[in-house]
Amino acid sequence: MTARIRRRAGRRPGNPDTRQQILDAAREAFAEGGFDGASIRQIATSAGVDPALVHHYFGTKEQLFLEMLQLPIDPREFLPQVLAGDKHEIGVRLVGTFLRVWDSPAGTAAAALLRSAMTNDWTVRLLREFLVTQVLRRVLAHIEPDPAEAPLRVSLVASQIAGMAMMRYIIKLEPLASAPPDTVIRAVAPTIQRYLTGDISGSAPATT
Amino acid sequence: MTARIRRRAGRRPGNPDTRQQILDAAREAFAEGGFDGASIRQIATSAGVDPALVHHYFGTKEQLFLEMLQLPIDPREFLPQVLAGDKHEIGVRLVGTFLRVWDSPAGTAAAALLRSAMTNDWTVRLLREFLVTQVLRRVLAHIEPDPAEAPLRVSLVASQIAGMAMMRYIIKLEPLASAPPDTVIRAVAPTIQRYLTGDISGSAPATT
Repeated sequence: MTARIRRRAGRRPGNPDTRQQILDAAREAFAEGGFDGASIRQIATSAGVDPALVHHYFGTKEQLFLEMLQLPIDPREFLPQVLAGDKHEIGVRLVGTFLRVWDSPAGTAAAALLRSAMTNDWTVRLLREFLVTQVLRRVLAHIEPDPAEAPLRVSLVASQIAGMAMMRYIIKLEPLASAPPDTVIRAVAPTIQRYLTGDISGSAPATT
Repeated sequence: MTARIRRRAGRRPGNPDTRQQILDAAREAFAEGGFDGASIRQIATSAGVDPALVHHYFGTKEQLFLEMLQLPIDPREFLPQVLAGDKHEIGVRLVGTFLRVWDSPAGTAAAALLRSAMTNDWTVRLLREFLVTQVLRRVLAHIEPDPAEAPLRVSLVASQIAGMAMMRYIIKLEPLASAPPDTVIRAVAPTIQRYLTGDISGSAPATT
């Protein structure tokens, strides 16, 4: 912890090689053990440094995870505004915020990342860890649904949001690719809202 | 057309090198001009063969397109059963059929193809052409919605189906990844049904 004293504002601390060693060890640890399974102690050991140095360079385990992912979009910035306010308007706020962020230059970088993340099992696993621990858990903690249904609800939300990202920004399927945000919100927000707070186990007839 | 006479049942006709030249030319033509823009004549010219030979080896332009894509799942096999019957049960049939096909070994191959297809612009363009010309147009022709809303409706369906494929089969997000088909159908079919035949421009409030 004495290391913290040496920290200077406006400048990333540390030897670039050591930082990179820690990030490499972190990537492996998070991909293998998941976010919950990985520990700063284990990452430090495999990078050959003291755990205090890892904390000094990167802060908490969560901060290290996000730094390692190098996401162009940080969920800590946009999730609070999505989650604040009326629970029954969360679909509208989620789709609206999603479109605002992804229609921006950061969205172009996010689309590139999503494309490349899908190409191998390692990056797919990291993407899943990110979704579960950084996004979905926070949404869940906020909406407080029936605990038995909650995990399915958030994975359904993830499916519609991921599919929208894929069709609007990667496959660029028209007219969804260039539809005005309001059009997309009107169409998609009710889906998100039903997945979060509506009936998801209703009376659909059995398939043929 | 005299070439057709030489065709023998149970055996792919033609010189393997010539077949491959035609497939390479087709891939380029479809990626550049799209399905509608590409022609057998143009593909034949760029492969250095007679158009009659292309027809002889591959049949119609659509058959050549599907052969070139080498999809593990052929929409001509499953779309008829999805589209047959009550228009207001199409969501249930679409999700049910999708899960049955993707939960099978063919789905594993389809997931691998989807992953690799997203990595470069060329394959992304071919995937979009496939979706639009082989799947969505057929669905559209069947449900006969308001022509002004129809293209948005089918691209919304594509977004939810693609997102479900991504989360269940590629990212493998739980519990969606291993939920029983009936659970997924009950949750997702109403979304598909609303996108196809329900209100998609309703009274969602404006975003903040």
